Amino acid sequence: MVMSAGELAKLIGAAVEGDPNVRVSGVSSPERAGANDLIYLDAPKHRERAEASRAKCVLAHSGVRMADKTVLEAAEPKLAFAKAGSRLAVAPTVHSETHATAIVAPDAKVGKTVSIGPYAVIEPGAEIGSGTMIEAFCYIGRGARIGENCLLHPRVTLYEGARVGNRVEIHSGTVIGSDGFGYVFGDGQQWKFPQVGEVRIGDDVEVGANATIDRGSLETTEISRGVKIDNLVQIAHNVKIGEHSVVAAQTGVSGSATLGQRVVVGGQVGIADHCRIEDGAMLGAQAGIPSGKTIRAGQVVWGTPARPLDRFKEQYAHASRLPDLVERVRKLEQKLAGQ
Amino acid sequence: MVMSAGELAKLIGAAVEGDPNVRVSGVSSPERAGANDLIYLDAPKHRERAEASRAKCVLAHSGVRMADKTVLEAAEPKLAFAKAGSRLAVAPTVHSETHATAIVAPDAKVGKTVSIGPYAVIEPGAEIGSGTMIEAFCYIGRGARIGENCLLHPRVTLYEGARVGNRVEIHSGTVIGSDGFGYVFGDGQQWKFPQVGEVRIGDDVEVGANATIDRGSLETTEISRGVKIDNLVQIAHNVKIGEHSVVAAQTGVSGSATLGQRVVVGGQVGIADHCRIEDGAMLGAQAGIPSGKTIRAGQVVWGTPARPLDRFKEQYAHASRLPDLVERVRKLEQKLAGQ
Amino acid sequence: MVMSAGELAKLIGAAVEGDPNVRVSGVSSPERAGANDLIYLDAPKHRERAEASRAKCVLAHSGVRMADKTVLEAAEPKLAFAKAGSRLAVAPTVHSETHATAIVAPDAKVGKTVSIGPYAVIEPGAEIGSGTMIEAFCYIGRGARIGENCLLHPRVTLYEGARVGNRVEIHSGTVIGSDGFGYVFGDGQQWKFPQVGEVRIGDDVEVGANATIDRGSLETTEISRGVKIDNLVQIAHNVKIGEHSVVAAQTGVSGSATLGQRVVVGGQVGIADHCRIEDGAMLGAQAGIPSGKTIRAGQVVWGTPARPLDRFKEQYAHASRLPDLVERVRKLEQKLAGQ
Repeated sequence: MVMSAGELAKLIGAAVEGDPNVRVSGVSSPERAGANDLIYLDAPKHRERAEASRAKCVLAHSGVRMADKTVLEAAEPKLAFAKAGSRLAVAPTVHSETHATAIVAPDAKVGKTVSIGPYAVIEPGAEIGSGTMIEAFCYIGRGARIGENCLLHPRVTLYEGARVGNRVEIHSGTVIGSDGFGYVFGDGQQWKFPQVGEVRIGDDVEVGANATIDRGSLETTEISRGVKIDNLVQIAHNVKIGEHSVVAAQTGVSGSATLGQRVVVGGQVGIADHCRIEDGAMLGAQAGIPSGKTIRAGQVVWGTPARPLDRFKEQYAHASRLPDLVERVRKLEQKLAGQ
Repeated sequence: MVMSAGELAKLIGAAVEGDPNVRVSGVSSPERAGANDLIYLDAPKHRERAEASRAKCVLAHSGVRMADKTVLEAAEPKLAFAKAGSRLAVAPTVHSETHATAIVAPDAKVGKTVSIGPYAVIEPGAEIGSGTMIEAFCYIGRGARIGENCLLHPRVTLYEGARVGNRVEIHSGTVIGSDGFGYVFGDGQQWKFPQVGEVRIGDDVEVGANATIDRGSLETTEISRGVKIDNLVQIAHNVKIGEHSVVAAQTGVSGSATLGQRVVVGGQVGIADHCRIEDGAMLGAQAGIPSGKTIRAGQVVWGTPARPLDRFKEQYAHASRLPDLVERVRKLEQKLAGQ
Repeated sequence: MVMSAGELAKLIGAAVEGDPNVRVSGVSSPERAGANDLIYLDAPKHRERAEASRAKCVLAHSGVRMADKTVLEAAEPKLAFAKAGSRLAVAPTVHSETHATAIVAPDAKVGKTVSIGPYAVIEPGAEIGSGTMIEAFCYIGRGARIGENCLLHPRVTLYEGARVGNRVEIHSGTVIGSDGFGYVFGDGQQWKFPQVGEVRIGDDVEVGANATIDRGSLETTEISRGVKIDNLVQIAHNVKIGEHSVVAAQTGVSGSATLGQRVVVGGQVGIADHCRIEDGAMLGAQAGIPSGKTIRAGQVVWGTPARPLDRFKEQYAHASRLPDLVERVRKLEQKLAGQ
């Protein structure tokens, strides 16, 4: 997409300082930018990198001036840059095309302008909304439903009956709707607890590569609108994740845990079964939330078992000074023994 | 599968209280149940949900009575419910069918009533037992052997020579028989230690989605009968896991570690190389077992490095009170200084 | 490959003690070895196993003698054994063959003696160097470039533009070049930060199964020559890993972190964003390196937050004795109260 700095500024709500006719066609880092790339500057320490860049247009805080560059002024340059990126990105043109090698069940309902890649398999009863791209080797199980304008990268598996909303992007290797992990031991063996529930992914969700999202056991696993899930994340049966929450790589959410809206989960976090993470809570990387625990709205927690960040820091500081404390107690003992 | 409450009760060893002729055809949660679904109740707090359900048949502890419902009485309702689920589930009918697009080597030995899905690849010398379903995009390497009545979901990879027992279910994206991770540094580079061993999966094993189980280096990686492995689990070279053990999601078992029978491993646990986890031990979520350590039979451990649960709790409680202790020591010092 | 003990000794820099004409054709463990397998012995406690082996040739420290066996003497038997393994391994013969079902774009550049397996998809503009094997179901995105003598096991995904060096081995299910995980929250939703950078894998790299390596956001994700990456590892956008570093299973490296050369990372380690791990550092299993932190060259760290191994041990020992310390303080308080 090519547009003028002025046009772009309007789309992202920025003010223009300098020539509004400069052409912008992409986003880049200062070092890699060409003349028509947009760069951004959100901290004074990066000013030199921005100045040395070939880019003619820079997104920055109000008041920033740079010789020979058009400045798009925004209160939050990084946010505005992300918006600019999405405006400038050339969306892949979806041709209404089913590759000759794709196997689409005769009764599958495929919308208009849908692209189905080589060797994709669409099972009976599946539905695919208009404008959606299904890339190579995707497997869309029996009765699974995918909304409009989705992008499934190569090798995504949707088990039978899985439901995916609109404008959802799923990266390569991800599996949605596999059986939950539940067994009851008896008579000398493990008996599988029924895993016959559903799995629903809301609108505007993005799921990274090689992630796994299990179907519900008797209930439904639900990923709400706007949720972002990173690579290698595990979401167990019956989990509910509220709108616009983000879950970083390699985190695991155990059975029947619920996350509210705008929850931020760091990488490698473990959330045990039946936990309740309220709106806006933040779980630091590698935190462990024990079974059944509630993390209150807006709380920031850290460690295993997770505790409020301040308390974690205090405890950690004290633990670091333990050798000192032991020495102080020894001296007290000596003193008292000497009396 | 449809049967009467009385027939089902016999199959799962429950007593019937109420009308034994009520029809049962599936399992469900109280809220989602239809009249012919079986529900279960194993705690008084869920009684209202059960009573309000449309289900006409409920599995519960002895002595539970519910107006208008047939009660199947069992000592362990959840266990009985799991058994009922497996009895009522309609097993996928395995048609003796190889999809036209599957590539099956002429010398592969394929049993009776085997179903091979679209775009599956079965390499030379592979063997597949009767009643087994191989779904789309599965790759069965040269000389790999799969037993009877197995279910391989789409996109499972078996490397050359991997062996899988009977009634094994493997979920989408899982890789079995990849090379172990072993290198020796010398002459300025990493030299790969030979990874030429075997991998064997016993009968009645279930492996979740996107898991990885490496072949042995010089020995054999062995997953015994009845073991259950969750999504995204890593099993390294030469690991042995004993019968009926369960390993929750994202756990990693390092090279040459051994797990006994009925071991229960929580999620995100790390078991270092050459550990020995004895029968019936339980490793809490996110626990870390240091290299070479033994966990005794039946022990419950927690934390990193893992220690017995009681000790972990005591230490954690003391750590939480460290700020108090420091204050107490400060007061003692003051007092003594003042003498 | 079959050769004499004498020939092999020359290739790996070992001295021969005993009959140099013994034939050697593979490597094995003592128990599984046949007469022509090479075994190794690097600790006296394994001597009996070696003696009882059918193998006629053993790699061992200088001075080791064994009746009826040829001893290849090396300063580091395990290293020499790894070298021997690579010398004796029969490299898969790469036939110049594109399977009839592979879909290779007409303008893709495919080198000499390249093997492309069933159902592989090679998109327009992709390049594949001579001697490389691409196995079944691999997806090589638009403009991706793979060097010479690589081995891509079944079901590897390379996103558009990904670059892979020479002699690289990538195991099944691994995804290279997926979008990084970066969002900026504003106007009530998450905005995706542009993920338009590159990803480059150097020569002689090995990547395990079901791993994920994201492309850069605006920069480049770089895995340098000789790096070894285990199963289920996550490498985020803009990460740089220096030559010959090894990263064990399930570790996650967050955005813009850098690892120097010969860094050794244990399993399940979490390296937060913008960390700097210098040459030769070692990160113990499950360690957590907080955001932006530097680990100095050669340092060995452990725990979360990671600290030097000695300090970790000392703190842990003190923490284990906390109940004692509390008791000692209580006694001091009693004593003082009694005065």
